[in-house]
This record gives sequence, structure tokens and C-alpha cells, in this order.
Amino acid sequence: MHEFIAPVALDKAYRLITHGPTVLVSARHAGVDDVMAAAWACALDFQPPKLTVVLDKATRTRALVEASGRFVIQVPTRAQLDLVVGVGSHSLADMPDKLARFGVSTFEQPGHALPFVEGCAAWLACRLLCEPHNQQCHDLFIGEVEAAWADGRVFRDGRWRFEDVDPAWRTLHHVAGGQFYAIGQAVRSEQ
Amino acid sequence: MHEFIAPVALDKAYRLITHGPTVLVSARHAGVDDVMAAAWACALDFQPPKLTVVLDKATRTRALVEASGRFVIQVPTRAQLDLVVGVGSHSLADMPDKLARFGVSTFEQPGHALPFVEGCAAWLACRLLCEPHNQQCHDLFIGEVEAAWADGRVFRDGRWRFEDVDPAWRTLHHVAGGQFYAIGQAVRSEQ
Repeated sequence: MHEFIAPVALDKAYRLITHGPTVLVSARHAGVDDVMAAAWACALDFQPPKLTVVLDKATRTRALVEASGRFVIQVPTRAQLDLVVGVGSHSLADMPDKLARFGVSTFEQPGHALPFVEGCAAWLACRLLCEPHNQQCHDLFIGEVEAAWADGRVFRDGRWRFEDVDPAWRTLHHVAGGQFYAIGQAVRSEQ
Repeated sequence: MHEFIAPVALDKAYRLITHGPTVLVSARHAGVDDVMAAAWACALDFQPPKLTVVLDKATRTRALVEASGRFVIQVPTRAQLDLVVGVGSHSLADMPDKLARFGVSTFEQPGHALPFVEGCAAWLACRLLCEPHNQQCHDLFIGEVEAAWADGRVFRDGRWRFEDVDPAWRTLHHVAGGQFYAIGQAVRSEQ
């Protein structure tokens, strides 16, 4: 289904996460790929686009990010709920076949040596801005978005199009445990 | 309607913002109150609960936060859409009657010298953790949540209850300009 994946202009990349979805974080180092879920990810700047993500010290993905200086933030959909909870609840350290176990397939994007998770709604390829204080004291990682893509069925012309597609495309917004909300109705202010 | 406002245990406070709502930031210093909207706010830690929020240098609210070391993050609802867009689009510096103009009423919480915005779904009273590098380089402010409250009609027993109340209670999730989504259906994983 890669024919629907289209680049997103960097000055619009913040729109992929400003509505606060739970994301998947993926990284690669020395031949090892890992994917985790993160509810605490947030846009930080418009241009160049930057974002923050909280990565616990216990996660294998964090170690890959620190070693490679690269990661992908991707926006999963309601159709991927069990995958999100699975990769968010288990560590590659304890479950070497974690990705296969939870049905995670990845694909490549030319020029980016990173694992991109199939079936997501959007992907942001990031370069780690190394900030030892934030990483050590707050588990807070800052990335500059170097390239972004979205599935044109659900995000195009700089806007989400949830109202036009099957509810399975809705983004996930975590509360706690296995409890999430899907994103809902579009609302617009006339102010 | 304050009879519905109830404290939220600090170890559950992260649940008020983990689903990624746009928030209102309020602060007070030297007799001046201000309120702004912020789409880029995010939980940072569980216990003690901490959060991040991006505050542009052009905002008057930021100056009040820096001067007082205190602020409130509150979670507005769909019923407050025009208020959110109004306070998010105009500065107190240019519009001295900004709060009245957009229908913002505030109330007090004993022990907290801060303006709390009426009609929101939840409130988190924060102490600024002074981090000059993050504030200057990234416009990124870190707060420790010292107390939290929610309207028990929409958040109780540590969980959002959007499915039980009028859609006007749904939280707002910004995309860009005047475009938002309301939070949608509850989804739960059986993983």
C-alpha cells in the first residue's frame, strides 16, 4: 500500500502530532531494530520542525536511539490498537521476537537507515539533538524532523481527513493501561 | 458549579493530559492575570507528576510564569472552543481586556495564588522547575504538578468519562489555525 504514502512538507510536519496522538517510536543500531509505544510525545517547534518524546531508561528502543542518534516517530491507527499495546507492554530485552509476536512489519525509506512501521498514518524521521541533561534527568529526548510522510488517504494537503475515511484510521490517544480514546469529530471555530 | 470539582490524586494527574488535549495556560504576577492556549503540552513524569509546555517568547503569559514561577494547566472543553481560539490568537499586550472579551472567568483555589479558568474539565497547579537552557533555547517549560482537580462529571475514579456526558464536554485537540478535533470513542485493548 506504499502507493498512498506521500511526503509532507517540513513546515506542515507539526500537524501530524499537534492533536496529541500516542505514537510508535522505532530505531535501529548494529543490525537491531526495535519499536515501542509512547504516549508522551509532543511537537516542539515549527521550522525546522522539532519534537519531544519521553523514553524510559528501561526501554531497548532508547538505547538504540542513543547509539544511532536517529529515530522514527510514527502515528498508529485504531486498526493497530493491539500492536500498540503489545509493543508498549513488552521489551525486546525480555522478548527477542517481540516485533513478530505483535505483527509489526517494517519498511525502508531511501536515504534513512531506520525501520518504518507498516500501516501507520504518518511517519517523522528524526535526528536526535543530543541533550544529556534532558535525557538523563527527565528521560526527555528532542528530535529534529528531517523528513515526514503520511498516508494520503487520511492526511493530505496539510490536513487530517479522518471524517472521510473508515474509523479504523482514527488516531489513538492513551489514558492509562489498555484504555484509549480514538480521535473524534472535526470542530472549527469561527473566531 | 464548583460542587462538582474534586481533587485528583497526584499519582493519577498524568491521566488528565496523556490523551493529548490542547490546554489553557494561566498565570498571575503583580496583580496581572493572563490566560493563553497551548497545543504543545505533554506529561513528563508520573510521581511526582511533571509536564512540559511550549510557551512562545511573544506571550504575556510566559512573562508571568517566569516572574512568578507558577502556572496552571487546564483542560478546556468543546463548549469553550471560541474562548480557546480567542485567548490563543490575541495577546494581553495588545488587548488589555482580552480575558473579558473572550468570556474568560477565573476562580481561586485556597493555597494557590493563581487564576483557574471556569468551565474547564481539569486543572493542574504547577511549580516551574527553572531550566534556563530549555526555556531560552526551546521555549520549553517544565512544571511539577503540586495539585490537580477535575470536574467529577467528566473525570472520576481516575478515568475520563466522555462517553457518559454531553459531547460539549469533549476535550479539544488542535491541528492548525481554527481546526480542531474533539476526542472520540473509548477503545480498549484486550492484550
